[in-house]
Amino acid sequence: MRAVLVAVGDELVNGDVVDTNSAWLARRLVALGVDVSRHVSVDDDLDELTAVLRAAVADAGVVVVTGGLGPTPDDLTRYAVARVAGVPLERRPELVSNIRGHFTRRGRDMPGPNLVQADLPRGANAIAPVGTAPGFTVEVDGALIACLPGVPVELERMVDDSLLPLLRDRGGLVATVVRTIHTAGIAESEVAERVGALVGRLASGGGSRLRFLSSQGQTRVQVVGRGADVAAARAQVDPVVDELVDLLGGAVTGLDDERVEHAVGRLLSRRGWTLAVGESITGGGVGARLVTVPGASAWFTGGVIAYATAAKPVLADVAQAVLDEHGPVSEVIAATLADGVRRRLGTDVGLGVVGVAGPTAQGGRPVGTVCLGVALPHAATWTRTVELPPRSRTDLQQSAAGVALESLRRRLVAAVT
Amino acid sequence: MRAVLVAVGDELVNGDVVDTNSAWLARRLVALGVDVSRHVSVDDDLDELTAVLRAAVADAGVVVVTGGLGPTPDDLTRYAVARVAGVPLERRPELVSNIRGHFTRRGRDMPGPNLVQADLPRGANAIAPVGTAPGFTVEVDGALIACLPGVPVELERMVDDSLLPLLRDRGGLVATVVRTIHTAGIAESEVAERVGALVGRLASGGGSRLRFLSSQGQTRVQVVGRGADVAAARAQVDPVVDELVDLLGGAVTGLDDERVEHAVGRLLSRRGWTLAVGESITGGGVGARLVTVPGASAWFTGGVIAYATAAKPVLADVAQAVLDEHGPVSEVIAATLADGVRRRLGTDVGLGVVGVAGPTAQGGRPVGTVCLGVALPHAATWTRTVELPPRSRTDLQQSAAGVALESLRRRLVAAVT
Repeated sequence: MRAVLVAVGDELVNGDVVDTNSAWLARRLVALGVDVSRHVSVDDDLDELTAVLRAAVADAGVVVVTGGLGPTPDDLTRYAVARVAGVPLERRPELVSNIRGHFTRRGRDMPGPNLVQADLPRGANAIAPVGTAPGFTVEVDGALIACLPGVPVELERMVDDSLLPLLRDRGGLVATVVRTIHTAGIAESEVAERVGALVGRLASGGGSRLRFLSSQGQTRVQVVGRGADVAAARAQVDPVVDELVDLLGGAVTGLDDERVEHAVGRLLSRRGWTLAVGESITGGGVGARLVTVPGASAWFTGGVIAYATAAKPVLADVAQAVLDEHGPVSEVIAATLADGVRRRLGTDVGLGVVGVAGPTAQGGRPVGTVCLGVALPHAATWTRTVELPPRSRTDLQQSAAGVALESLRRRLVAAVT
Repeated sequence: MRAVLVAVGDELVNGDVVDTNSAWLARRLVALGVDVSRHVSVDDDLDELTAVLRAAVADAGVVVVTGGLGPTPDDLTRYAVARVAGVPLERRPELVSNIRGHFTRRGRDMPGPNLVQADLPRGANAIAPVGTAPGFTVEVDGALIACLPGVPVELERMVDDSLLPLLRDRGGLVATVVRTIHTAGIAESEVAERVGALVGRLASGGGSRLRFLSSQGQTRVQVVGRGADVAAARAQVDPVVDELVDLLGGAVTGLDDERVEHAVGRLLSRRGWTLAVGESITGGGVGARLVTVPGASAWFTGGVIAYATAAKPVLADVAQAVLDEHGPVSEVIAATLADGVRRRLGTDVGLGVVGVAGPTAQGGRPVGTVCLGVALPHAATWTRTVELPPRSRTDLQQSAAGVALESLRRRLVAAVT
């Protein structure tokens, strides 16, 4: 079963909004065994949208359209699908009730424009609205067109409750399993060289295949396997993952969904240690990533956001004389922050991160400078300075958080093993 | 000048990576005056990629391909473009030197697989590599195909230094200006109703057009205008923006790139006030958003991440008896955090945010509960409890940060005006 995903909206095509719906939807479909062959984003133009839908129907058994189901004049999905299906639109009284109910429950009258959301192509199967937009499916030339709202919470509910069960019933699915090996500190081409023989063997009929993803200096290798069911696909993939972990050795930082904050939590838990952070350049971004890990409160106690220079003495006992001598962006201050939060919060481990996110240099340190400190039990506080390549302020802050977490992970690996 | 953007990679089509490159690229092209008509993501399959490129060349004068230029066996862009152009690949000695130099400067030998990155379709114009991947452009049937690496920092450099100047020289551009009015606390359909007459007037020949974007309960209205140059387009758009601000009144939260954290910074600056935050559920996510605003240190002093319950007394003077009586997720604790950080850091304003991100309820409060406190000069500390709709842990944490910032903004508006 092949699928094409179509996302509708000027805001997507012009880049004002990043289309995260299609990636989410693709993961759901691939996990079910659907072969997603491409994504298309198209603007709010009836002729363009109609042409894209006609090409998709000619090419795939399933076409999933997200967006363009709202009440405003630029919401054109229903009209384009009716044209492709060659049928008129019809107003569905039960959907009018659903939509009116949505407003009544909030103590409001239904605004007039919402009425058009109850108009579906003749013969379509309605999917009851989660918000105000009903979804629907319609068969055209043997292909299923499913139209779903672009609001993520509404889309996700309709996919899980309606679309996936429908596709499962149609059959023709092949289970796909994708597993990921994360690496750091090794060039993409070096990864490719080390696993070259394995790639050759798999190409000559091994069943699984590899792909290589590189971003921000980290390369991921993915192993993709397919089979009659998930267990069969998994049996094919797992030995390849084991072989890759052997080939890549110490460059492997984690498997599958494990991000560096998960590895940090696992390493801390293994020793029964707790962590506190002292952040300046990242403004809380390191803590925000740590708390995404479920159960983080078992090993992440908290920390301080010592952003303005004046906050550093108050929050983490940084002496004014040290600030004056070394400047706020220095390894000494990073170490003092790490030591200060560790002592104040009574944790085993302290992490400090300071730096210059721009737009201008600070205290003689150029934009992109990041200084890190890691305080561990029974060891001198470790420090390091990293110069990040030129990027926007927000990117630098996010990269600084990533570098801080990765440095912490490495210190923990060295301390725990 | 019409453009189609093609992003290449299994990881995109299968949803393991969200394609942020195409949105960035689209914004750059639209700002230059290129009419972007669609984005396509296609997997690492030579036949599929070739078919997508042929369709794009038939439909647009400019086709920008990102990704698939790496050294690994799944990097197929150069082969597909050579097929579409009907020419062989040729190794470019000067590019071999460029790529080798990249490794030499890092004290390493060039791995063998990188050699293929120097192979370009005959007749192509090379764009020197930023990392190891050269870009290139080639003319096919009157269309320009530009192939650029998928690594964002490399892509961005080549677009700004090479692609945009090239397109400017080709001419045929129409300047486009997009301005945005952000609203909150009003349904999308209500926005549509209030501006209905304006939409009608613009449709009958006003030149500009409107679009409506809705996410997380906030609706944005965008005004799009085109003209011979940016000044002409802007002259068309600005009066429409003014009219919309009048029509939408108090629902308007900001214009253009201004996010809520910018509005918070502007409001604080206007009064010469400073802010401290006390975060639990968000783990630092509120601070991380505040520090994205350039110059934030003038009004954002810092704060504490009182994540584990034990951290709250230590970091923000929350009395154990109050924790025992009210539980960590309560308006009393949010208010105490706000007051505590305000006092400790000597700021004018304090913000406290606690809540339950899941996966399980906490202290009798369900997942999605968020309690907020805002402490202002000369006023009792304001508190509020919000129940967020069911979402993932990470989404709840991010929404909690957004709700906290928006609540703070409203309190500041009330206090400052």
